[in-house]
Amino acid sequence: MQIDTLVIVGVGLIGGSIAASARQRSVARQILGLGRHHSTLERAVQSGLIDAAPADPAAACRRAELLIVCTPVQDIAERILEAAAWVSPNCILTDAGSTKQLIVEKVEAGLAPHLRFVGGHPLAGSEKRGPEHANPRLFEDRLVIVTPTPRSDPEAVRRVCEFWQSLGARTRLMSPEDHDQAVAATSHVPHVLAAALAAALPEDLHPLTATGFRDTTRIAAGDPEIWTGILLQNRQAVLDGLAAVEAVLRRFQSAIADQDPAVLHELLLQAKRLRDALGS
Amino acid sequence: MQIDTLVIVGVGLIGGSIAASARQRSVARQILGLGRHHSTLERAVQSGLIDAAPADPAAACRRAELLIVCTPVQDIAERILEAAAWVSPNCILTDAGSTKQLIVEKVEAGLAPHLRFVGGHPLAGSEKRGPEHANPRLFEDRLVIVTPTPRSDPEAVRRVCEFWQSLGARTRLMSPEDHDQAVAATSHVPHVLAAALAAALPEDLHPLTATGFRDTTRIAAGDPEIWTGILLQNRQAVLDGLAAVEAVLRRFQSAIADQDPAVLHELLLQAKRLRDALGS
Repeated sequence: MQIDTLVIVGVGLIGGSIAASARQRSVARQILGLGRHHSTLERAVQSGLIDAAPADPAAACRRAELLIVCTPVQDIAERILEAAAWVSPNCILTDAGSTKQLIVEKVEAGLAPHLRFVGGHPLAGSEKRGPEHANPRLFEDRLVIVTPTPRSDPEAVRRVCEFWQSLGARTRLMSPEDHDQAVAATSHVPHVLAAALAAALPEDLHPLTATGFRDTTRIAAGDPEIWTGILLQNRQAVLDGLAAVEAVLRRFQSAIADQDPAVLHELLLQAKRLRDALGS
Repeated sequence: MQIDTLVIVGVGLIGGSIAASARQRSVARQILGLGRHHSTLERAVQSGLIDAAPADPAAACRRAELLIVCTPVQDIAERILEAAAWVSPNCILTDAGSTKQLIVEKVEAGLAPHLRFVGGHPLAGSEKRGPEHANPRLFEDRLVIVTPTPRSDPEAVRRVCEFWQSLGARTRLMSPEDHDQAVAATSHVPHVLAAALAAALPEDLHPLTATGFRDTTRIAAGDPEIWTGILLQNRQAVLDGLAAVEAVLRRFQSAIADQDPAVLHELLLQAKRLRDALGS
């Protein structure tokens, strides 16, 4: 896939990694960055991640063949609709947000009928933030969920999938609703549990933690601003997912309280089988 | 530290790693292994981890200068008291169990007054099991909690600490009760949460997991037999620790349900600060 001008709105860890990967794989002739934080964009230009950070976003958007918004989720729909006022009808609009339903609904409700938007979400990331941590291999062999709706243009869906594939990723189509349910369980609920576990540990016990605690709580180091947005945008699915984990927790608590080794062993064995199936 | 004969009861991951480390660091002239599983001991002899697996445990114990029990926690006290019938009065008895209070109480209640036992727990391990995964560097720079009581012989406490230090570990003294409270929070409660999280994930969502989910649930792959024993031996502290995490979880759930970004951000920030303080 060869794009003439790729515009990335929000050049943080994800936006920066898209730029680095697109550069390394010669996916775009020119990569332009837009965003609220001028100093971040300047650093991204200086480090060669992006070719330029134009002061005039309208002019940059007019040249975009593909425009991807990589800001915190609560800003994505607004940034897409803002860009939509300027882009050419040939431009494909997409995003890399960790939630989809609210974003897709808001964009589709506000987008002019001749413009094309398809949502996406790369299942890759890091607890780090900022273009300094950009990684050109971040999407290699990772799954990207692309979330078309009945309103989506099939050609745009195909091109968004091709774009991610050209960065080394695999793609899978899901509805925005199914996506949000799924990532609540695989990502958002684990984040809340890891954060609760980290927050509940008294500070004097820090020296007694070993690799187990560190692995289990690693994602709790994620950016609070980004995660506040994600958890609120996916509110009901996150609450449902937490309730599902709590139901399993209750069974563990009962087995421990009742001193029932058979039930406890069975619960642990079930968890081990499921975890073993995931691989390391 | 130079031990003449080191006897290891239970040559699994921990016992095998003690053997491998003691061998590499020339801590013992001779390393003997005992245990219920003859085939495991044979493999440990064949791979050179231990010098021999004597068929007569009494004869092996009589020669022990230091005897360490590394079986699942529910068997440790019994194995110590069994060995105590045979060992010389100079022998130091210890263990490597993940719980301490019940073990120490049971051993001290049953041990002849002229014999010396001090409990210990290396904060190191793996979700793997068996001597095949023995690692001579498993204890390097790791913390080992040694748990003396008013009944403990100070010389025995010193020698158990020296033994672990000679394997590259740091040591710290704690009461068995304080130890159990602490590891409930740092290890046992995280294990239950990781297991509940792994068990709650529908199988069709496995392909959608990324590094976050895998990190958070890694310890759930631990051996169900070993963990059933640990969770039941440390029952009350584990239940208390789970309740403490649930109290924090409630605050997350309320903030999400109430759509309160300020409270949610504050909770996430607190978790991030605590997790950042732990390092990677």
